Amino acid sequence: MYFGRVYVSYKQSVLDPQGEVIKSGLTHMGFNKIESVKQGKYFEIKFAAADMEQAKQELVKMIEALLINANTETYRYDLKELED
Amino acid sequence: MYFGRVYVSYKQSVLDPQGEVIKSGLTHMGFNKIESVKQGKYFEIKFAAADMEQAKQELVKMIEALLINANTETYRYDLKELED
Repeated sequence: MYFGRVYVSYKQSVLDPQGEVIKSGLTHMGFNKIESVKQGKYFEIKFAAADMEQAKQELVKMIEALLINANTETYRYDLKELED
Repeated sequence: MYFGRVYVSYKQSVLDPQGEVIKSGLTHMGFNKIESVKQGKYFEIKFAAADMEQAKQELVKMIEALLINANTETYRYDLKELED
C-alpha cells in the first residue's frame, strides 16, 4: 500500500482571496507581522500499486485528472510505501 | 522572515464527505486501487519573528486561533527561516 500526500496551491500570478481574508483576520486578532497567507488544499491518498515507480505514475495521473485545476493551481507531493 | 506550512486534516473519527466524493470520482475514472482519500487544508504563511523559537510559538497561536477547528481537525506544520 502506498501513501501519497498532495499539496495544492495557487500559482504565483493567481489571486487568493481566501488567503487575504485569513491574513486580514489574523492581523485584526493582533498578529501584525504577517507578510502573506496563502490557502491551498491538501490530500492524503492510500492506494495499491505494484512498485514505487508505478505508484508515482498513478499518483500524478490522479492529481492531474481530478485534484487540481492546471490553469490556476500548482502542486507538489510526497509518497511513501506503508508497512502493512 | 519565517515561512510556515500548515497541513490541516480531519481527525480519524470525523467523516470526510469530500474525500469520499473524490475517491468515488477517481474510482469511476478507472483508478480502482484506492483505499482512501482524505481532503484537508493547506496554508503557507510568511511572517516576521525575532527568532525560531518565537516564530514557532506565533505560528501555533495563529493556527489555533483561526486556521483550525480543534473539535474536528488536527494539524502538523513545518517552519523554516527564509533568506532575505
